[in-house]
Amino acid sequence: MPTNATLSRYIPILAWGRHYQRSDLTADLLAGAVVAIMLVPQGVAYAMLAGLPPQVGLYASILPLIMYGIFGTSRTLGVGPVAIVSILVASSVGELAEMGTADYVQLALTLAFLVGVIQVGMGLLRVGFLVNFLSHPVLAGFVNGAALIIGFSQLGYLLGIDIPRMEFAETVAYAVTHASEINFVTLAIGALSIGVLLYFKVVLGGQLERAGVPSAIAIPLTKSAPLLIVLLGTTAVFLFDLHDAVGVDIVGAVPAGLPPLTMPTMELDTWSSLLPTAFIISFVGFVESISIAKSLARKRRRRVHANQELVALGISNLSAAVTGGYSVTGSFSRSVVNYDAGAKTGMASIITAVIIAFTVLFLTPLFYYLPKSLLAAIIMVAVFGLIDIKTFQFSWKYNKEDAFSMIITFFAVLFLGIEKGVLVGVGTALLLFILHTSRPHIAILGRLPNRDIYLNVARYEVTTCDRVLAIRIDQSLYFANIAYLENAVYQLRADCPRMQHFIMSCTAVNSIDTSALETLESLQTSLAEVGITFHLTALKGPVQDRLKRIGFIKRFGVDHVHKTTHEAMVFLGCA
Amino acid sequence: MPTNATLSRYIPILAWGRHYQRSDLTADLLAGAVVAIMLVPQGVAYAMLAGLPPQVGLYASILPLIMYGIFGTSRTLGVGPVAIVSILVASSVGELAEMGTADYVQLALTLAFLVGVIQVGMGLLRVGFLVNFLSHPVLAGFVNGAALIIGFSQLGYLLGIDIPRMEFAETVAYAVTHASEINFVTLAIGALSIGVLLYFKVVLGGQLERAGVPSAIAIPLTKSAPLLIVLLGTTAVFLFDLHDAVGVDIVGAVPAGLPPLTMPTMELDTWSSLLPTAFIISFVGFVESISIAKSLARKRRRRVHANQELVALGISNLSAAVTGGYSVTGSFSRSVVNYDAGAKTGMASIITAVIIAFTVLFLTPLFYYLPKSLLAAIIMVAVFGLIDIKTFQFSWKYNKEDAFSMIITFFAVLFLGIEKGVLVGVGTALLLFILHTSRPHIAILGRLPNRDIYLNVARYEVTTCDRVLAIRIDQSLYFANIAYLENAVYQLRADCPRMQHFIMSCTAVNSIDTSALETLESLQTSLAEVGITFHLTALKGPVQDRLKRIGFIKRFGVDHVHKTTHEAMVFLGCA
Repeated sequence: MPTNATLSRYIPILAWGRHYQRSDLTADLLAGAVVAIMLVPQGVAYAMLAGLPPQVGLYASILPLIMYGIFGTSRTLGVGPVAIVSILVASSVGELAEMGTADYVQLALTLAFLVGVIQVGMGLLRVGFLVNFLSHPVLAGFVNGAALIIGFSQLGYLLGIDIPRMEFAETVAYAVTHASEINFVTLAIGALSIGVLLYFKVVLGGQLERAGVPSAIAIPLTKSAPLLIVLLGTTAVFLFDLHDAVGVDIVGAVPAGLPPLTMPTMELDTWSSLLPTAFIISFVGFVESISIAKSLARKRRRRVHANQELVALGISNLSAAVTGGYSVTGSFSRSVVNYDAGAKTGMASIITAVIIAFTVLFLTPLFYYLPKSLLAAIIMVAVFGLIDIKTFQFSWKYNKEDAFSMIITFFAVLFLGIEKGVLVGVGTALLLFILHTSRPHIAILGRLPNRDIYLNVARYEVTTCDRVLAIRIDQSLYFANIAYLENAVYQLRADCPRMQHFIMSCTAVNSIDTSALETLESLQTSLAEVGITFHLTALKGPVQDRLKRIGFIKRFGVDHVHKTTHEAMVFLGCA
Repeated sequence: MPTNATLSRYIPILAWGRHYQRSDLTADLLAGAVVAIMLVPQGVAYAMLAGLPPQVGLYASILPLIMYGIFGTSRTLGVGPVAIVSILVASSVGELAEMGTADYVQLALTLAFLVGVIQVGMGLLRVGFLVNFLSHPVLAGFVNGAALIIGFSQLGYLLGIDIPRMEFAETVAYAVTHASEINFVTLAIGALSIGVLLYFKVVLGGQLERAGVPSAIAIPLTKSAPLLIVLLGTTAVFLFDLHDAVGVDIVGAVPAGLPPLTMPTMELDTWSSLLPTAFIISFVGFVESISIAKSLARKRRRRVHANQELVALGISNLSAAVTGGYSVTGSFSRSVVNYDAGAKTGMASIITAVIIAFTVLFLTPLFYYLPKSLLAAIIMVAVFGLIDIKTFQFSWKYNKEDAFSMIITFFAVLFLGIEKGVLVGVGTALLLFILHTSRPHIAILGRLPNRDIYLNVARYEVTTCDRVLAIRIDQSLYFANIAYLENAVYQLRADCPRMQHFIMSCTAVNSIDTSALETLESLQTSLAEVGITFHLTALKGPVQDRLKRIGFIKRFGVDHVHKTTHEAMVFLGCA
């Protein structure tokens, strides 16, 4: 029987719910409401980005948020539709069905179901650590590429041109060659919306702060820009009859009522065509979510638990799949707002869900005249805000390999597509690490005068001894770098004709694989043939244990293995 | 203008040719002849394995051997057709053309051309080190799988059943269900041949040695088994009319005359379908060749130069492509024989070529009645001799990851095919290395009494200090393992409530990437929030340089970076 502690580890609401206070509720109500103000227009806009009807974005913002409130370990994560996941849905489901059809919606919810299964599975198997293989530079390159693709995918809506789905660069070319078709009223609405959004985002916060407005008022105010333009834009289209008179594209009828109960498709064929994207959404969604959850939790000295987070996000996705929604994850912007607005617990997420439920029950008729160019503006401002140049600048200065994998990922996303792009990025980062380890740094060691410490002759004033050459290899020895070491040793032998003893210090050797071991043995033989003895020093405990287990130390010679380089030097009469 | 030394580096014959002596020639003549004795039947047999007419195997044994003699840096490598490369040719060209057609032959020589281009290119670009990514266990797993596939591919010839090309397991099933079709005379020839080959291979050498026969006679004698059975088998089929009377399958007419001049197909479409296999042959062929070349050179204290070897093998393959041959590489068995028979220089290889040229000029009529089951026997004995169980036993005991990648490669070769198999193997080995580095060993350090040395508390009698926790992380810090370290530190903080200072010794940290650096900074902040200072010690020179370049050391605090753990302990008043 599980104890209370175990239960509340898997259902965190049981832990915080027990001590929930009136003051918490006040804070959560405000935060939940502010997030809902953002989420209503975002839900509708991201659904459009995913190629889904507007209500699907709202459905995905009800039960999934309640489930996350119950199972999530972050108290401030804002779950729901996000731009990156939406474009992934569009790019994969778009290949299997026509946008706007019932099939398309069904495939999107089946995809959410698969994402849920994968995330819950990974969480229960405790393999959440696998997402660390998505390095920060690769993620940044991916997000930058995706942001450009998403931004330009909205160009048609913004200009009022009917641009067919096509490659990123082609979209721009198409827009330019069809410039005569631009609907200027549509464009004006979009451009004005962008202006308002940028003003609220960049300028207003500072102004309110300088005016001494308390943050409990300032935050809802600055974050209400999307809602504000939705209200103004819809009213304008309605009052001036902009749809019928000048052809401004609008959202149209959105059905009212709570989300329907839906059932994912249970066909292996469908599953196997959705599975690659499901894995990518599971990983990318989780990485996005966990990074923001971690950084917010850190500010309040709390911790999030990666594997439980996977389970919670997985349950959210499963609940989206059975209530007519689509894939969800933690949103960067809404989480920050939730945190800043003072959310105390998962109750804030539940309150947001209740407000969205109220919206789909009673307010959907208000969306009828909502212009699409306005939604495009919301998407564009959101995604261009994700673009991260700093990581590139930093890694260019600090670690070219990271900068390189960021560039590769970026261009792979742009030119191979958003899904292959992320795979290419992960592969590149791993390969670069391998390449890096395959040409290890090798230092020739000398003794620090009057100390027992041996350091790189190229960096320190140290003394060496002609008869004995000591090196330190700064890498674990394995198949990909052992031939490099072997060649380096032959080179050193040629460079130091008076060498009689050769010492290899293994302070940085964390493991020696089978291929490397064979080479070490043959190296010993080759050196012996030219009269040079081979010594290993400072072998780490775990490495030594293994070598002993197979009798290597004995075969190599107990006299040739020393605890420290200094001991070896003393043994060889050189210190 | 290149100097003589540079020239003879790229054309090694210029170096050894200048000092060539009569005694060298005697030795090379014997060795070259012995190798030719092996190569005639092997060339015909491996051509059959590759799905090519018998003469193609002989053509591939003339100009390529002369070229290798001129350009090769190993003096004893026996270049020519080998089993593994032959099955690779069969499996890839077999998908593009019907065996036995002129198209098939043309594709095979185009493949040799591409292999030549790749190998010369890799050699000139000096990227030969890339082949080290094929680890010994993966290679062993690959060879074992390929040996089984090759062996069973000969079952039809051995039994005299016409088995269609199919999967390894299906071949056996087909043979069993069609047992009634077995041609027992064919089988008898094959079985007898296997018996003779095994006797010569396993027993005869020892008997001759015990009888005191000098090796100059013993080696040609023991290695003449294939030639002997070819002579006996052909004679028997001819004398007893076994082909017409009982249907023993024979080689048939082999055209006489020197190799024709041929031209590889110069079509991009053809190239792109052959390219994946061309890369695999280039890599696998080179690895096989360089390992035997290296181990033989070591015995005579010579060295082979990886990149020049690539160029030499590449030129051999190019020359095969223009003289009606197919892909070649260094053969394990013939190289050992060449070495044992006393080959002194590349002249031995050239002599072998001359004998093969004589054979195609005058002796091809003798092959007419050569039974195919006898060739199957030669192939089977050769490849089953390649099976390597020891590497598995050893790595199972020493390093389970190596054993695991060997098993994976073996089964991938058997069930996914010989080409995908090797790719899966390389991928698995690299992934296992990554996984290994993603969960690094972390040791808590204590002080060796009265010494300045700090060692793992779990292994040594050392003293620690409650206020200060020192750890050593045994791995470079990078995106795939930094979250693991972060979690470990949080765990340690929970386990050591009295900790005020936290020291991380970086003796084994060979690099810190961008993702890891960010985490270190946020770790410092989190620890500071709970009143713990974070110290780094023993940073390696190259790591320190980079950190300084971006101002990290200053930001982190110069007081928090120490040369050694002991210095940090003294600074913190704990030593």
